[in-house]
Amino acid sequence: MKAAYYTGNKSFSIEDVAPLPPGAGEVQIDVAFCGVCGTDMHVYHGAMDARIGNHRVIGHEMSGTLSAVGDETEGLAVGDPVVVRPLVACGACPACERGHAHICHNLKFLGIDTDGAFQQRCTVPAHTINKLPAGLPLEHAALIEPLAVACHDVRRSRLKAGEDVLVIGGGPIGMLIAIVAKQAGGNVTLSEINPFRLEMAKSLGFASIDPSATDVGAAMHERTGGKGADVVFEVSGSQAGVECMTAAAAVRGRIVMVAIHPQRPAIDMFSFFWREFELLGARVYEPEDYDEAIGLLAAGGVDCAKLITDICDLDQIQGAFEALDGNAQAMKSLIRVS
Amino acid sequence: MKAAYYTGNKSFSIEDVAPLPPGAGEVQIDVAFCGVCGTDMHVYHGAMDARIGNHRVIGHEMSGTLSAVGDETEGLAVGDPVVVRPLVACGACPACERGHAHICHNLKFLGIDTDGAFQQRCTVPAHTINKLPAGLPLEHAALIEPLAVACHDVRRSRLKAGEDVLVIGGGPIGMLIAIVAKQAGGNVTLSEINPFRLEMAKSLGFASIDPSATDVGAAMHERTGGKGADVVFEVSGSQAGVECMTAAAAVRGRIVMVAIHPQRPAIDMFSFFWREFELLGARVYEPEDYDEAIGLLAAGGVDCAKLITDICDLDQIQGAFEALDGNAQAMKSLIRVS
Repeated sequence: MKAAYYTGNKSFSIEDVAPLPPGAGEVQIDVAFCGVCGTDMHVYHGAMDARIGNHRVIGHEMSGTLSAVGDETEGLAVGDPVVVRPLVACGACPACERGHAHICHNLKFLGIDTDGAFQQRCTVPAHTINKLPAGLPLEHAALIEPLAVACHDVRRSRLKAGEDVLVIGGGPIGMLIAIVAKQAGGNVTLSEINPFRLEMAKSLGFASIDPSATDVGAAMHERTGGKGADVVFEVSGSQAGVECMTAAAAVRGRIVMVAIHPQRPAIDMFSFFWREFELLGARVYEPEDYDEAIGLLAAGGVDCAKLITDICDLDQIQGAFEALDGNAQAMKSLIRVS
Repeated sequence: MKAAYYTGNKSFSIEDVAPLPPGAGEVQIDVAFCGVCGTDMHVYHGAMDARIGNHRVIGHEMSGTLSAVGDETEGLAVGDPVVVRPLVACGACPACERGHAHICHNLKFLGIDTDGAFQQRCTVPAHTINKLPAGLPLEHAALIEPLAVACHDVRRSRLKAGEDVLVIGGGPIGMLIAIVAKQAGGNVTLSEINPFRLEMAKSLGFASIDPSATDVGAAMHERTGGKGADVVFEVSGSQAGVECMTAAAAVRGRIVMVAIHPQRPAIDMFSFFWREFELLGARVYEPEDYDEAIGLLAAGGVDCAKLITDICDLDQIQGAFEALDGNAQAMKSLIRVS
């Protein structure tokens, strides 16, 4: 079978390797599609070499069909259409003991800490498998992993129908958060500077703000009768984004920290005190977020055709990453693996 | 009657003025004691002159006895021992409409935006009055306002019995938070650099850490089996404090922002994402916090004699503020008003 190895220095090599047969408690997937995540671009740029080395199959936004099952995999059968929740927790740390296995102190992430889905057969623990309802296109199912991130973020926010929502940053995760928040009854505004993304936000039915032209905090207070946003998602990872989040939030507003801020931004702590804001960190997903994401997709709640801006064969993965790097016109890119 | 006016430039003037008779919906209090709050020291330093001018009776941590009642003050009678919840909300802004009157957009704070309790008779709206149970010494009752702040902070944290708590900063509010958290069943550690306050923390039964000698984050993880603090109260208002708060918190830890940070500190947002921390702003109190504070004091849950480090007559208020300014040996100072 073909496997695309990240080999360091913005390079992939396509190699012909033997598929790994599943052991006890494992299954093997005939990978159909695998999305390119921001983390994969991060790997491509060499930012995670210390963690993953220079001979690793990445890719974790996968959909596919079970091609083999090991012992102790009750309820799973060859031919099942599936997606993977790519987390393996230790089960013994303080976070696992308290029921927060998705934030395990020793969490392994499939496709980062193990070989992932940019290969034709991928072997994973059976407990990571989510079966798909019949008829869900596998191309669309590759969106379930990032959609589950968005479901987790919205769940953390305790969003109620009718509340005013601001999403800061309209990349794939921000756009999916906007979609999930709207499905939950939120009045969603998306803040984004990229014209392509702004246009997509509008076509998906969201109010939008270009922060390079408009004061986001003032605009959110104006359009909510002086109240501000009940819920804010900070997905930009920028200093400007964290300034918007405190400027735009209502008294007792819930602000969900989705973005990864490698530097320590300066945060308006006075406003946290003064307006009793809540800040909620949100990382990956829990099992119920996968259930919700699959349900949303199956119910037709996500315009997948619009979000998937290109699909490329596994053979062309090098070109796909090169084309995607800094591409202002892309939303979600998929690799067709099998 | 005597009234102490803040007149700008670190000065008070004692003046003989006529008491204000209570109008409809108002009561007049024969003030017994009034504590000196950090905010009062802030006023003394001139930091709030733009808001309060230079002829204002400050003081809001008051206890006393009703000396007159106006019309429409059902349930209140001359002679009732009382304390005041010094907030007047507008009732019409988005925060009030949503039941968050204590964070009203147009909140008036008695003793800042109106004349307060460093005078022998103080007239206030009847709805701010909390009656005291018989037998509660009025000297101790002057602690109820800051104790209600602590009750609010602990309530915001959703502290459960048996959880590990870190309080960063051991001034009056930090010490009261530690007391309330311990009463609620928390395993409390207090972080403080001032030796006098560290000694008081120990004498009140709290574990303590001196962050100038010990790495607070490492120490909290060590004493909790690698878990970290379930609840952290940031009461220091310092950059070092916000660094401790993220270093010490457990996965899904709740961090309550009690301190006023006039500058924007650099905050470790990566850890908020990575460990799904929650940050909860907390400002003043709601009615139930007063109920709880009065109950705690009446039940003997607060060692008032230890916390009250000095009491000074109203005539001596100038000297009291001068002595308190930068005093490393003070905890709560009271003014004996009547």
